Amino acid sequence: MKQYRVKIGRKLSLKQHDPDDTGNYKKDDDGRASAKAETDKHIATISQLQERLYANSARALLIVLQGMDTSGKDGTIRSVMSGVNPQGCKVVSFKAPSSQELAHDFLWRVHREVPAKGQIGVFNRSHYEDVLITRVHGWVSDEVVERRFEQIKEFEELLTENGTTILKFFLHISKKEQKERLEERVRDPEKRWKFNEGDLEERRLWTRYMDAFEDMMAATSTAHAPWYIVPANRKWYRNLVVASRVVEAMEDMKLKTPPPTPGVNFDTLKIV
Amino acid sequence: MKQYRVKIGRKLSLKQHDPDDTGNYKKDDDGRASAKAETDKHIATISQLQERLYANSARALLIVLQGMDTSGKDGTIRSVMSGVNPQGCKVVSFKAPSSQELAHDFLWRVHREVPAKGQIGVFNRSHYEDVLITRVHGWVSDEVVERRFEQIKEFEELLTENGTTILKFFLHISKKEQKERLEERVRDPEKRWKFNEGDLEERRLWTRYMDAFEDMMAATSTAHAPWYIVPANRKWYRNLVVASRVVEAMEDMKLKTPPPTPGVNFDTLKIV
Repeated sequence: MKQYRVKIGRKLSLKQHDPDDTGNYKKDDDGRASAKAETDKHIATISQLQERLYANSARALLIVLQGMDTSGKDGTIRSVMSGVNPQGCKVVSFKAPSSQELAHDFLWRVHREVPAKGQIGVFNRSHYEDVLITRVHGWVSDEVVERRFEQIKEFEELLTENGTTILKFFLHISKKEQKERLEERVRDPEKRWKFNEGDLEERRLWTRYMDAFEDMMAATSTAHAPWYIVPANRKWYRNLVVASRVVEAMEDMKLKTPPPTPGVNFDTLKIV
Repeated sequence: MKQYRVKIGRKLSLKQHDPDDTGNYKKDDDGRASAKAETDKHIATISQLQERLYANSARALLIVLQGMDTSGKDGTIRSVMSGVNPQGCKVVSFKAPSSQELAHDFLWRVHREVPAKGQIGVFNRSHYEDVLITRVHGWVSDEVVERRFEQIKEFEELLTENGTTILKFFLHISKKEQKERLEERVRDPEKRWKFNEGDLEERRLWTRYMDAFEDMMAATSTAHAPWYIVPANRKWYRNLVVASRVVEAMEDMKLKTPPPTPGVNFDTLKIV
């Protein structure tokens, strides 16, 4: 996974990251089938480790998903996280902020939704929208964006210092792939409800978005909360990359079965 | 499922409900295997219907789970709801209320956690604790409990009138079955962390709890929010009963693919 990790404090060019990349897997049915089998194994492992995460309730995992429209944020959640016990998994979709949320700092609504100890939290979009859509549309100045980068780093440091592991994934699709996915929504009557005219406006701003993503990831990829650029043109490879990184992060937590409830003499205890 | 539904406004005796019941399924490996196969089909259906529930975001489903310790509330959630996309499923475990929660009426914290439109919400324990544990321990008077029954019915009516389907399941185990499950936690070093000495104190109050459950279900089983007494000594039958009732309730919603986004001329639209 190291190849997809954004280097800390180095300028970044998304052009040098191929959204069509499939690593060691062939771009054919065979490659797809073996990647899927591998992903299924990872998903089963996540489900097991999640039970331990929940049992211990000492650590948390926060997964942040960002990407252009149709990049597969919803699909990644459905594919990778279905199978996890929903009792220990909380998905939060951040939409346009409400007036109450706008009346607070941009991290206020986000902080309320971070995963509790024992939980996996998934952010479908996140506080990073406040340095993306807002910037691309010129709603905030570059100075404010620069300050927000610092505020985000400090906020994420607070979370990690208190037991939360943070993984941030940018789902990287090409402009051409987005075209095909949008066309699919137009063509297929079963998918037309997903079509949103606003997506076309954002699409026109593609280059500006890529610039904003580059700046943002270069500025906020840290040792404690790294960004990963996930090649996402092929859904099966996208799922594999995310699932395998989640497994690694959970294995790094070295979760064990919790110790017996203290203060109980289990050898003499009788249930009547 | 009708046989497990609590009749409206009729006195109820849990003694007449066999926690060992397995319906038309034999109490052997064959019965278990065929019940499991049936449950798996239901789970796949729930997962599909949930995607439509989410797509439409017009209705919600609230599942309330109550039962004695070890009755399998966590296990039911893990077995029946793993497989559902966690983006559309929110599980809330109600623990002892915080001082802030106690400073409000008993439905305040519950109302905040009801599922949004498009979601399945699962309550692992619920507002019903406020007419159970509180009553059994004598922390509230019978007059307060009677008023709470009315308040609960009106609260649940509000939810259903605004698009939420409510299913309430009492996981019915025998006192003997609880003994075996607690003994398992004492015996198995891997399960000892689950053991809670407080559970023994509640166990001593078994009869009072059964009386409180009987009163509560007779008083609050309504046409819009019925109670089901789920035979739960056998986990596989418990899962089957819950899963099949959930499927029925979701099928009753007659969820369809949402209509195409209005105001878009899909026939002439070009993506550039």
